Amino acid sequence: MNQTPRPQASASELWSPEEFDAAIRAVGAERYHDKHAFHKLLHGGKLNKGQVQAWALNRYCYQEAVPRKDASFISRVHDRELRREWIRRIHDHDGFGDEPGGIERWLILTDGLGLERDYVTSFRGALPATRHIVESYVRFVREQPLVVAVASSLTELFAPSIHRERIAGMLENYSFIDDGVMAYFKRRLSQAPRDADFALAYVKANAKTRAEQEACVGAVRFKCDVLWAQLDALHHAYVTPGLIPPGAFRPEGANS
Amino acid sequence: MNQTPRPQASASELWSPEEFDAAIRAVGAERYHDKHAFHKLLHGGKLNKGQVQAWALNRYCYQEAVPRKDASFISRVHDRELRREWIRRIHDHDGFGDEPGGIERWLILTDGLGLERDYVTSFRGALPATRHIVESYVRFVREQPLVVAVASSLTELFAPSIHRERIAGMLENYSFIDDGVMAYFKRRLSQAPRDADFALAYVKANAKTRAEQEACVGAVRFKCDVLWAQLDALHHAYVTPGLIPPGAFRPEGANS
Repeated sequence: MNQTPRPQASASELWSPEEFDAAIRAVGAERYHDKHAFHKLLHGGKLNKGQVQAWALNRYCYQEAVPRKDASFISRVHDRELRREWIRRIHDHDGFGDEPGGIERWLILTDGLGLERDYVTSFRGALPATRHIVESYVRFVREQPLVVAVASSLTELFAPSIHRERIAGMLENYSFIDDGVMAYFKRRLSQAPRDADFALAYVKANAKTRAEQEACVGAVRFKCDVLWAQLDALHHAYVTPGLIPPGAFRPEGANS
Repeated sequence: MNQTPRPQASASELWSPEEFDAAIRAVGAERYHDKHAFHKLLHGGKLNKGQVQAWALNRYCYQEAVPRKDASFISRVHDRELRREWIRRIHDHDGFGDEPGGIERWLILTDGLGLERDYVTSFRGALPATRHIVESYVRFVREQPLVVAVASSLTELFAPSIHRERIAGMLENYSFIDDGVMAYFKRRLSQAPRDADFALAYVKANAKTRAEQEACVGAVRFKCDVLWAQLDALHHAYVTPGLIPPGAFRPEGANS
């Protein structure tokens, strides 16, 4: 507690693009949710169907928040070209024209798990923590400087590997999962890298001071926490110690 | 001041759809900005080019706010179908794919009037009041109940007649206006009724109490005020008494 901070001669110097890139990726290496115990159980086939249902219906809350988060971002952008680019993310989730969109694909997953759509979309069975966490993400994007808001999307840099692992692991390990219900993740394999490339270039071009660069890295950390904390809540309720909050989804046969 | 209010036996009763519709349209009949002195001058060919320039560059601020207002609305909507419907409004303004959108068409108008794009899009020449008024509209849509936010768009019910009058009047009366620069208004002749029909049906279906119905009528009044106040500011600065605020656009030859 009495340690004098080491003088950091370079603390106010702008990072080079390579240093900035490395600092962003280091956050993923440390705390992206592919490292969470719950995901290891999920992908390794160690969860029962009720636990996978709990995961899917809670994660729906996150999926549903994402297009609202993106609209919230667009509502603050005065640059028309940036709005035109970013709106594609809303289409990816909500669909557009004949394209049903990612939320619909997520509901195909929850259908496949035997959950009623009305129940899933009502949020009634979601953990209280899930709702608070995802709305905190929407709020972050509405309130932070634009470049920091963009940076919070950069967890997409780390998404393809977890999606590949998830597709393979869940198909292999669960009899109640088939190819059709994994469509969401397959689609994200191509969407996420496109979005991440754009956002990374934007952040590199628009974080003009070291303080802004560090705020961007902080935004990636914040977003990793958004993802991690959702799994903490799931693990606590449905794995160990298995304390399901009042009113939250209760798998068939769960202890009351 | 000492009048006792007349007892209104029906003040808490839900309006019928017809009564509600009539109350909305009565607001337009009373205070839509087609009745503003500035518009009568504009459409009647009574303004000089500098005054039309001032109108066009101030109105750009409003055009630029509209897609942000719509994104702000979408960011609050949990109903995916409603988001999918409403996002078309953003495309109408920002463009999408090959479609350049309404803001681009507005800039073709300001180009045609001899204004530099950088100057127009920088907002530097806009009247201070214009900026405050249009951002107040964005804020209204972000903060009011959803049905009230939708109702604030219902001035589109009254738009086609002013657009037709404007197209005819401006083409006839100004040598510096040609068909090409009026493209914005021609496009809105088909877009506005489609949007207004949807919004009117939504408001009728979702205002469930008399208080909500009255709040919706209040939203139409608020929005009419948004439009009217912009013209008041223009009239004060560029017509009578012609007091242009510091830093605002100053037509060539205007008194200093």
